[in-house]
Amino acid sequence: MAIKLYELAAAEDDRRFSPYCWRIRFALEHKQLSFEAVACRFTEKEVIAFSGQDKVPVLADGDDVIVDSWNIACHLERTYPDRPSLFGGSAGQALSRFYVDWTATQLHGTLIRLLASDIHAHLHEKDRIYFRKSREKQFGTTLEEFCSNQAEALLELRHILTPLRRTLKIQPYLGGDSPLYPDYAVMGAFMWARSVSQVPLLEPNDPVALWRSRMLSRLSDDSGRLKHYD
Amino acid sequence: MAIKLYELAAAEDDRRFSPYCWRIRFALEHKQLSFEAVACRFTEKEVIAFSGQDKVPVLADGDDVIVDSWNIACHLERTYPDRPSLFGGSAGQALSRFYVDWTATQLHGTLIRLLASDIHAHLHEKDRIYFRKSREKQFGTTLEEFCSNQAEALLELRHILTPLRRTLKIQPYLGGDSPLYPDYAVMGAFMWARSVSQVPLLEPNDPVALWRSRMLSRLSDDSGRLKHYD
Repeated sequence: MAIKLYELAAAEDDRRFSPYCWRIRFALEHKQLSFEAVACRFTEKEVIAFSGQDKVPVLADGDDVIVDSWNIACHLERTYPDRPSLFGGSAGQALSRFYVDWTATQLHGTLIRLLASDIHAHLHEKDRIYFRKSREKQFGTTLEEFCSNQAEALLELRHILTPLRRTLKIQPYLGGDSPLYPDYAVMGAFMWARSVSQVPLLEPNDPVALWRSRMLSRLSDDSGRLKHYD
Repeated sequence: MAIKLYELAAAEDDRRFSPYCWRIRFALEHKQLSFEAVACRFTEKEVIAFSGQDKVPVLADGDDVIVDSWNIACHLERTYPDRPSLFGGSAGQALSRFYVDWTATQLHGTLIRLLASDIHAHLHEKDRIYFRKSREKQFGTTLEEFCSNQAEALLELRHILTPLRRTLKIQPYLGGDSPLYPDYAVMGAFMWARSVSQVPLLEPNDPVALWRSRMLSRLSDDSGRLKHYD
Protein backbone atom coordinates (compact mmCIF):
# COMPACT_ATOMS: atom_id res chain seq x y z
CA MET A 1 0.00 0.00 0.00
CA ALA A 2 1.45 3.36 -1.00
CA ILE A 3 2.43 5.90 1.63
CA LYS A 4 0.04 8.84 1.77
CA LEU A 5 1.05 12.26 3.08
CA TYR A 6 -1.81 14.60 3.99
CA GLU A 7 -0.66 18.19 3.56
CA LEU A 8 -2.12 21.65 4.05
CA ALA A 9 -3.15 23.22 0.74
CA ALA A 10 -3.97 26.74 -0.41
CA ALA A 11 -6.65 27.82 -2.89
CA GLU A 12 -4.78 26.06 -5.67
CA ASP A 13 -4.33 22.39 -4.93
CA ASP A 14 -0.64 22.51 -5.78
CA ARG A 15 0.36 25.29 -3.40
CA ARG A 16 1.36 23.59 -0.15
CA PHE A 17 2.62 25.83 2.57
CA SER A 18 2.76 24.18 5.98
CA PRO A 19 6.39 24.20 7.18
CA TYR A 20 5.75 20.99 9.11
CA CYS A 21 4.47 19.24 5.99
CA TRP A 22 7.54 20.36 4.03
CA ARG A 23 9.79 18.72 6.60
CA ILE A 24 8.13 15.40 5.88
CA ARG A 25 8.23 15.86 2.12
CA PHE A 26 12.01 16.35 2.42
CA ALA A 27 12.25 13.40 4.80
CA LEU A 28 10.40 11.14 2.36
CA GLU A 29 12.68 12.23 -0.48
CA HIS A 30 15.69 11.61 1.79
CA LYS A 31 14.44 8.09 2.49
CA GLN A 32 13.79 7.62 -1.24
CA LEU A 33 10.23 6.59 -0.53
CA SER A 34 7.51 7.22 -3.09
CA PHE A 35 4.28 8.60 -1.76
CA GLU A 36 0.99 10.16 -2.69
CA ALA A 37 0.37 13.71 -1.46
CA VAL A 38 -3.20 14.48 -0.46
CA ALA A 39 -4.39 18.08 -0.22
CA CYS A 40 -6.30 19.18 2.85
CA ARG A 41 -7.46 22.72 3.63
CA PHE A 42 -7.91 24.31 7.04
CA THR A 43 -11.67 23.77 6.86
CA GLU A 44 -11.53 20.29 5.36
CA LYS A 45 -10.62 18.52 8.53
CA GLU A 46 -12.89 15.59 7.60
CA VAL A 47 -10.12 14.49 5.19
CA ILE A 48 -7.87 13.64 8.15
CA ALA A 49 -10.59 12.70 10.66
CA PHE A 50 -9.38 9.07 10.44
CA SER A 51 -6.21 10.19 12.27
CA GLY A 52 -8.22 11.03 15.39
CA GLN A 53 -7.06 14.66 15.44
CA ASP A 54 -7.19 17.72 13.20
CA LYS A 55 -3.60 18.70 12.34
CA VAL A 56 -1.44 18.01 9.30
CA PRO A 57 0.90 16.43 8.42
CA VAL A 58 -0.65 13.01 8.73
CA LEU A 59 1.17 10.01 7.31
CA ALA A 60 -0.69 6.84 6.39
CA ASP A 61 1.84 4.06 5.92
CA GLY A 62 0.19 0.66 5.50
CA ASP A 63 -1.82 0.13 8.67
CA ASP A 64 0.07 2.85 10.53
CA VAL A 65 -1.38 6.34 10.86
CA ILE A 66 1.12 8.79 12.31
CA VAL A 67 0.54 12.40 13.29
CA ASP A 68 3.03 15.17 14.21
CA SER A 69 6.06 15.80 11.99
CA TRP A 70 8.59 14.67 14.62
CA ASN A 71 6.73 11.40 15.21
CA ILE A 72 6.50 10.86 11.45
CA ALA A 73 10.24 11.39 11.02
CA CYS A 74 10.97 8.93 13.84
CA HIS A 75 8.52 6.44 12.29
CA LEU A 76 10.28 6.67 8.92
CA GLU A 77 13.69 6.21 10.54
CA ARG A 78 12.50 3.16 12.52
CA THR A 79 10.47 1.58 9.74
CA TYR A 80 12.99 2.03 6.93
CA PRO A 81 16.39 1.48 8.57
CA ASP A 82 17.88 0.28 5.26
CA ARG A 83 17.22 3.67 3.64
CA PRO A 84 19.53 6.70 4.18
CA SER A 85 19.36 7.75 7.82
CA LEU A 86 17.51 10.95 8.71
CA PHE A 87 19.44 11.40 11.96
CA GLY A 88 22.77 9.59 11.53
CA GLY A 89 22.34 7.57 14.72
CA SER A 90 20.83 7.92 18.17
CA ALA A 91 23.01 10.88 19.19
CA GLY A 92 22.02 12.67 15.99
CA GLN A 93 18.37 11.93 16.70
CA ALA A 94 18.56 13.40 20.21
CA LEU A 95 20.51 16.42 18.93
CA SER A 96 17.86 17.03 16.24
CA ARG A 97 15.22 17.99 18.81
CA PHE A 98 16.61 21.43 19.58
CA TYR A 99 16.61 22.34 15.87
CA VAL A 100 12.93 21.48 15.72
CA ASP A 101 12.18 23.59 18.78
CA TRP A 102 14.40 26.49 17.69
CA THR A 103 12.68 26.56 14.29
CA ALA A 104 9.16 26.39 15.74
CA THR A 105 9.74 29.17 18.25
CA GLN A 106 12.45 31.57 17.03
CA LEU A 107 12.28 31.17 13.27
CA HIS A 108 8.55 30.64 12.71
CA GLY A 109 7.79 33.22 15.38
CA THR A 110 9.56 35.89 13.34
CA LEU A 111 8.58 34.67 9.87
CA ILE A 112 4.87 34.75 10.66
CA ARG A 113 5.10 38.54 10.95
CA LEU A 114 6.33 38.61 7.35
CA LEU A 115 3.94 35.99 6.00
CA ALA A 116 0.56 36.07 7.75
CA SER A 117 -1.04 38.52 5.30
CA ASP A 118 0.33 36.67 2.29
CA ILE A 119 -0.88 33.34 3.63
CA HIS A 120 -4.36 34.80 4.04
CA ALA A 121 -4.31 36.09 0.46
CA HIS A 122 -3.44 32.66 -0.91
CA LEU A 123 -6.00 30.67 1.05
CA HIS A 124 -9.08 29.06 -0.42
CA GLU A 125 -11.99 31.42 0.14
CA LYS A 126 -13.61 29.01 2.57
CA ASP A 127 -10.48 28.99 4.75
CA ARG A 128 -10.06 32.76 5.05
CA ILE A 129 -12.59 33.42 7.79
CA TYR A 130 -11.18 30.57 9.87
CA PHE A 131 -7.59 31.73 9.40
CA ARG A 132 -8.27 35.38 10.18
CA LYS A 133 -10.31 34.57 13.26
CA SER A 134 -7.90 32.02 14.75
CA ARG A 135 -4.77 34.05 13.99
CA GLU A 136 -6.15 37.39 15.16
CA LYS A 137 -7.06 35.73 18.44
CA GLN A 138 -3.53 34.31 18.68
CA PHE A 139 -1.78 37.57 17.71
CA GLY A 140 -4.08 39.79 19.78
CA THR A 141 -4.48 42.19 16.84
CA THR A 142 -5.63 42.32 13.22
CA LEU A 143 -3.66 40.49 10.53
CA GLU A 144 -2.90 43.81 8.85
CA GLU A 145 -1.60 45.41 12.05
CA PHE A 146 0.42 42.31 12.93
CA CYS A 147 2.15 42.43 9.54
CA SER A 148 2.46 46.21 9.33
CA ASN A 149 6.17 46.56 10.11
CA GLN A 150 7.81 44.34 7.51
CA ALA A 151 11.14 46.16 7.59
CA GLU A 152 11.53 45.56 11.32
CA ALA A 153 10.46 41.92 11.01
CA LEU A 154 13.01 41.39 8.23
CA LEU A 155 15.81 42.80 10.39
CA GLU A 156 14.71 40.59 13.26
CA LEU A 157 14.68 37.55 10.98
CA ARG A 158 18.21 38.21 9.78
CA HIS A 159 19.33 38.63 13.38
CA ILE A 160 17.62 35.38 14.45
CA LEU A 161 19.52 33.61 11.66
CA THR A 162 22.95 34.67 13.00
CA PRO A 163 23.89 31.29 14.51
CA LEU A 164 22.64 29.43 11.42
CA ARG A 165 24.71 31.74 9.23
CA ARG A 166 27.83 31.03 11.29
CA THR A 167 27.38 27.28 11.11
CA LEU A 168 26.67 27.27 7.37
CA LYS A 169 29.80 29.31 6.76
CA ILE A 170 31.90 26.39 7.90
CA GLN A 171 29.93 23.38 6.69
CA PRO A 172 27.56 22.92 3.72
CA TYR A 173 24.66 21.48 5.75
CA LEU A 174 23.64 21.40 9.40
CA GLY A 175 24.13 17.64 9.11
CA GLY A 176 27.69 18.13 7.78
CA ASP A 177 28.53 17.16 4.20
CA SER A 178 24.94 16.18 3.47
CA PRO A 179 21.60 17.15 5.00
CA LEU A 180 19.95 15.50 7.96
CA TYR A 181 16.53 16.06 9.53
CA PRO A 182 17.57 19.38 11.16
CA ASP A 183 18.22 20.78 7.67
CA TYR A 184 14.68 19.79 6.73
CA ALA A 185 13.19 21.27 9.89
CA VAL A 186 14.78 24.65 9.15
CA MET A 187 14.20 24.45 5.39
CA GLY A 188 10.48 23.86 6.03
CA ALA A 189 10.32 27.45 7.26
CA PHE A 190 11.86 28.76 4.03
CA MET A 191 9.53 26.62 1.91
CA TRP A 192 6.61 28.11 3.84
CA ALA A 193 7.88 31.59 2.95
CA ARG A 194 8.59 30.61 -0.65
CA SER A 195 5.08 29.26 -1.14
CA VAL A 196 3.31 32.54 -0.41
CA SER A 197 5.73 35.48 -0.45
CA GLN A 198 7.91 37.31 -2.95
CA VAL A 199 9.87 39.24 -0.29
CA PRO A 200 13.62 38.56 -0.57
CA LEU A 201 14.32 37.31 2.95
CA LEU A 202 18.08 37.00 2.53
CA GLU A 203 20.95 38.78 0.84
CA PRO A 204 22.04 36.71 -2.18
CA ASN A 205 25.51 36.02 -0.74
CA ASP A 206 24.23 35.09 2.73
CA PRO A 207 25.51 31.57 3.59
CA VAL A 208 21.93 30.79 4.61
CA ALA A 209 20.73 31.73 1.10
CA LEU A 210 23.41 29.55 -0.50
CA TRP A 211 22.38 26.64 1.73
CA ARG A 212 18.72 27.27 0.84
CA SER A 213 19.61 26.96 -2.86
CA ARG A 214 21.45 23.70 -2.25
CA MET A 215 18.47 22.39 -0.30
CA LEU A 216 15.99 23.45 -2.97
CA SER A 217 17.96 21.69 -5.67
CA ARG A 218 17.46 18.43 -3.76
CA LEU A 219 13.71 18.65 -4.36
CA SER A 220 14.05 19.80 -7.97
CA ASP A 221 14.02 17.82 -11.16
CA ASP A 222 16.62 18.08 -13.92
CA SER A 223 14.98 21.15 -15.39
CA GLY A 224 15.23 22.95 -12.04
CA ARG A 225 11.50 22.80 -11.34
CA LEU A 226 10.34 21.76 -7.91
CA LYS A 227 9.13 18.17 -8.12
CA HIS A 228 5.34 17.80 -8.16
CA TYR A 229 4.61 21.46 -7.51
CA ASP A 230 6.15 24.16 -9.67
CA MET B 1 52.97 14.13 30.07
CA ALA B 2 49.89 15.49 31.82
CA ILE B 3 47.30 17.46 29.90
CA LYS B 4 47.34 21.14 30.81
CA LEU B 5 44.30 23.40 30.39
CA TYR B 6 44.97 27.14 30.43
CA GLU B 7 41.91 28.96 31.71
CA LEU B 8 40.85 32.54 32.31
CA ALA B 9 41.00 33.43 36.02
CA ALA B 10 39.56 36.22 38.16
CA ALA B 11 41.22 38.01 41.08
CA GLU B 12 41.14 34.80 43.08
CA ASP B 13 42.99 32.01 41.36
CA ASP B 14 40.13 29.59 41.84
CA ARG B 15 37.39 31.67 40.21
CA ARG B 16 37.35 30.67 36.56
CA PHE B 17 34.73 32.29 34.42
CA SER B 18 35.30 31.90 30.68
CA PRO B 19 32.34 30.00 29.20
CA TYR B 20 34.65 28.56 26.53
CA CYS B 21 37.03 27.22 29.18
CA TRP B 22 34.15 25.60 31.06
CA ARG B 23 33.17 23.70 27.93
CA ILE B 24 36.58 22.09 27.89
CA ARG B 25 36.58 21.33 31.59
CA PHE B 26 33.31 19.45 31.06
CA ALA B 27 34.71 17.76 27.96
CA LEU B 28 37.80 16.57 29.86
CA GLU B 29 35.61 15.19 32.66
CA HIS B 30 33.43 13.50 30.03
CA LYS B 31 36.51 11.87 28.52
CA GLN B 32 37.66 10.91 32.02
CA LEU B 33 41.01 12.55 31.39
CA SER B 34 42.99 13.99 34.29
CA PHE B 35 44.53 17.38 33.71
CA GLU B 36 46.23 20.30 35.34
CA ALA B 37 44.38 23.63 35.20
CA VAL B 38 46.58 26.70 34.81
CA ALA B 39 45.24 30.15 35.68
CA CYS B 40 45.75 32.99 33.21
CA ARG B 41 44.40 36.52 33.54
CA PHE B 42 43.41 38.91 30.74
CA THR B 43 46.70 40.81 31.14
CA GLU B 44 48.90 37.74 31.62
CA LYS B 45 48.97 36.73 28.00
CA GLU B 46 52.62 35.72 28.33
CA VAL B 47 51.38 32.55 30.07
CA ILE B 48 49.88 31.34 26.78
CA ALA B 49 52.34 33.01 24.39
CA PHE B 50 53.67 29.52 23.50
CA SER B 51 50.35 28.88 21.74
CA GLY B 52 51.08 31.60 19.18
CA GLN B 53 47.92 33.56 20.01
CA ASP B 54 46.33 35.28 22.98
CA LYS B 55 43.04 33.54 23.72
CA VAL B 56 42.06 30.87 26.24
CA PRO B 57 41.29 28.03 26.43
CA VAL B 58 44.60 26.54 25.35
CA LEU B 59 45.18 22.82 25.72
CA ALA B 60 48.68 21.38 25.92
CA ASP B 61 48.48 17.65 25.36
CA GLY B 62 51.90 16.06 24.99
CA ASP B 63 53.47 17.77 22.02
CA ASP B 64 50.16 19.12 20.79
CA VAL B 65 49.09 22.66 21.56
CA ILE B 66 45.49 23.32 20.60
CA VAL B 67 43.61 26.60 20.71
CA ASP B 68 39.87 27.36 20.34
CA SER B 69 37.34 25.34 22.32
CA TRP B 70 35.81 23.65 19.27
CA ASN B 71 39.23 22.57 18.00
CA ILE B 72 40.11 21.29 21.46
CA ALA B 73 36.90 19.23 21.66
CA CYS B 74 37.60 17.75 18.20
CA HIS B 75 41.20 17.00 19.25
CA LEU B 76 40.01 15.16 22.37
CA GLU B 77 37.49 13.15 20.35
CA ARG B 78 40.09 12.19 17.75
CA THR B 79 42.93 11.52 20.17
CA TYR B 80 40.96 9.53 22.74
CA PRO B 81 38.48 7.45 20.69
CA ASP B 82 38.38 4.75 23.38
CA ARG B 83 36.96 7.19 25.92
CA PRO B 84 33.24 8.15 26.01
CA SER B 85 32.36 10.03 22.82
CA LEU B 86 31.73 13.77 23.03
CA PHE B 87 29.64 13.80 19.86
CA GLY B 88 28.19 10.31 19.44
CA GLY B 89 29.49 9.94 15.89
CA SER B 90 30.10 12.06 12.83
CA ALA B 91 26.47 13.18 12.45
CA GLY B 92 26.45 14.24 16.09
CA GLN B 93 29.69 16.14 15.57
CA ALA B 94 28.29 18.06 12.59
CA LEU B 95 25.03 18.74 14.45
CA SER B 96 26.98 20.08 17.44
CA ARG B 97 28.21 23.13 15.52
CA PHE B 98 24.91 25.01 15.58
CA TYR B 99 24.71 24.68 19.37
CA VAL B 100 28.12 26.28 19.64
CA ASP B 101 27.10 29.13 17.37
CA TRP B 102 23.70 29.59 18.99
CA THR B 103 25.31 29.79 22.42
CA ALA B 104 28.01 32.22 21.33
CA THR B 105 25.59 34.60 19.64
CA GLN B 106 22.11 34.35 21.19
CA LEU B 107 22.85 33.14 24.69
CA HIS B 108 26.15 34.92 25.46
CA GLY B 109 24.86 38.01 23.67
CA THR B 110 22.04 38.32 26.19
CA LEU B 111 23.90 37.08 29.28
CA ILE B 112 26.67 39.65 28.90
CA ARG B 113 24.10 42.39 29.62
CA LEU B 114 23.46 40.70 32.96
CA LEU B 115 27.07 39.87 33.79
CA ALA B 116 29.48 42.50 32.46
CA SER B 117 29.45 44.65 35.61
CA ASP B 118 29.83 41.61 37.87
CA ILE B 119 32.70 40.27 35.80
CA HIS B 120 34.46 43.60 36.13
CA ALA B 121 33.98 43.56 39.91
CA HIS B 122 35.56 40.11 40.21
CA LEU B 123 38.58 40.77 38.04
CA HIS B 124 42.12 41.12 39.31
CA GLU B 125 42.87 44.80 39.68
CA LYS B 126 45.39 44.71 36.84
CA ASP B 127 42.74 43.32 34.47
CA ARG B 128 40.06 45.91 35.17
CA ILE B 129 41.34 48.70 32.94
CA TYR B 130 41.82 46.30 30.05
CA PHE B 131 38.35 44.80 30.48
CA ARG B 132 36.55 48.13 30.78
CA LYS B 133 38.32 49.63 27.81
CA SER B 134 37.90 46.66 25.47
CA ARG B 135 34.27 46.00 26.44
CA GLU B 136 33.16 49.64 26.36
CA LYS B 137 34.57 49.88 22.86
CA GLN B 138 32.68 46.70 21.90
CA PHE B 139 29.40 47.76 23.54
CA GLY B 140 29.61 51.37 22.40
CA THR B 141 28.73 52.60 25.89
CA THR B 142 29.89 52.43 29.51
CA LEU B 143 29.75 49.13 31.41
CA GLU B 144 27.26 50.66 33.83
CA GLU B 145 24.94 51.89 31.07
CA PHE B 146 25.21 48.57 29.20
CA CYS B 147 24.12 46.69 32.32
CA SER B 148 21.56 49.22 33.51
CA ASN B 149 18.37 47.40 32.51
CA GLN B 150 18.74 44.04 34.24
CA ALA B 151 15.01 43.34 34.35
CA GLU B 152 14.72 43.68 30.58
CA ALA B 153 17.83 41.57 29.98
CA LEU B 154 16.45 38.84 32.24
CA LEU B 155 13.18 38.75 30.30
CA GLU B 156 15.12 38.57 27.06
CA LEU B 157 17.26 35.73 28.41
CA ARG B 158 14.22 33.71 29.39
CA HIS B 159 12.74 34.30 25.94
CA ILE B 160 15.97 33.26 24.21
CA LEU B 161 15.87 30.03 26.21
CA THR B 162 12.42 29.05 24.87
CA PRO B 163 13.62 26.38 22.42
CA LEU B 164 16.05 24.94 24.99
CA ARG B 165 13.21 24.76 27.52
CA ARG B 166 11.02 22.87 25.04
CA THR B 167 13.71 20.34 24.23
CA LEU B 168 14.64 19.75 27.88
CA LYS B 169 10.99 19.16 28.73
CA ILE B 170 11.05 16.02 26.62
CA GLN B 171 14.57 14.69 27.14
CA PRO B 172 17.00 15.00 30.11
CA TYR B 173 19.94 16.29 28.04
CA LEU B 174 20.44 17.86 24.63
CA GLY B 175 22.42 14.70 23.83
CA GLY B 176 19.47 12.50 24.90
CA ASP B 177 19.75 10.28 27.99
CA SER B 178 23.22 11.59 28.75
CA PRO B 179 25.08 14.79 27.89
CA LEU B 180 27.11 15.41 24.74
CA TYR B 181 29.27 18.36 23.74
CA PRO B 182 26.25 20.61 22.97
CA ASP B 183 25.22 20.29 26.64
CA TYR B 184 28.67 21.50 27.61
CA ALA B 185 28.61 24.37 25.14
CA VAL B 186 25.36 25.66 26.61
CA MET B 187 26.28 24.86 30.21
CA GLY B 188 29.49 26.90 29.82
CA ALA B 189 27.27 29.98 29.63
CA PHE B 190 25.58 29.11 32.92
CA MET B 191 28.93 28.40 34.60
CA TRP B 192 30.09 31.83 33.45
CA ALA B 193 27.03 33.38 35.12
CA ARG B 194 27.43 31.23 38.24
CA SER B 195 31.05 32.29 38.67
CA VAL B 196 30.32 35.99 39.04
CA SER B 197 26.62 36.64 39.63
CA GLN B 198 24.03 35.96 42.33
CA VAL B 199 21.06 36.89 40.12
CA PRO B 200 18.59 33.99 39.84
CA LEU B 201 18.47 33.59 36.07
CA LEU B 202 15.77 30.91 36.02
CA GLU B 203 12.60 29.99 37.84
CA PRO B 204 13.34 26.96 40.06
CA ASN B 205 10.93 24.70 38.16
CA ASP B 206 12.15 25.75 34.70
CA PRO B 207 13.23 22.60 32.79
CA VAL B 208 16.42 24.52 31.95
CA ALA B 209 17.12 25.00 35.69
CA LEU B 210 16.55 21.30 36.35
CA TRP B 211 18.92 20.40 33.52
CA ARG B 212 21.47 22.89 34.90
CA SER B 213 21.33 21.09 38.29
CA ARG B 214 21.86 17.73 36.63
CA MET B 215 24.80 19.14 34.69
CA LEU B 216 26.34 20.72 37.77
CA SER B 217 26.16 17.47 39.69
CA ARG B 218 28.37 15.89 37.03
CA LEU B 219 31.22 18.21 38.02
CA SER B 220 30.59 17.84 41.76
CA ASP B 221 32.16 15.53 44.28
CA ASP B 222 30.22 13.34 46.72
CA SER B 223 29.71 16.21 49.16
CA GLY B 224 28.09 18.29 46.41
CA ARG B 225 31.02 20.70 46.07
CA LEU B 226 32.23 21.61 42.63
CA LYS B 227 35.43 19.65 41.94
CA HIS B 228 38.61 21.77 42.27
CA TYR B 229 36.84 25.08 42.70
CA ASP B 230 34.17 25.51 45.37
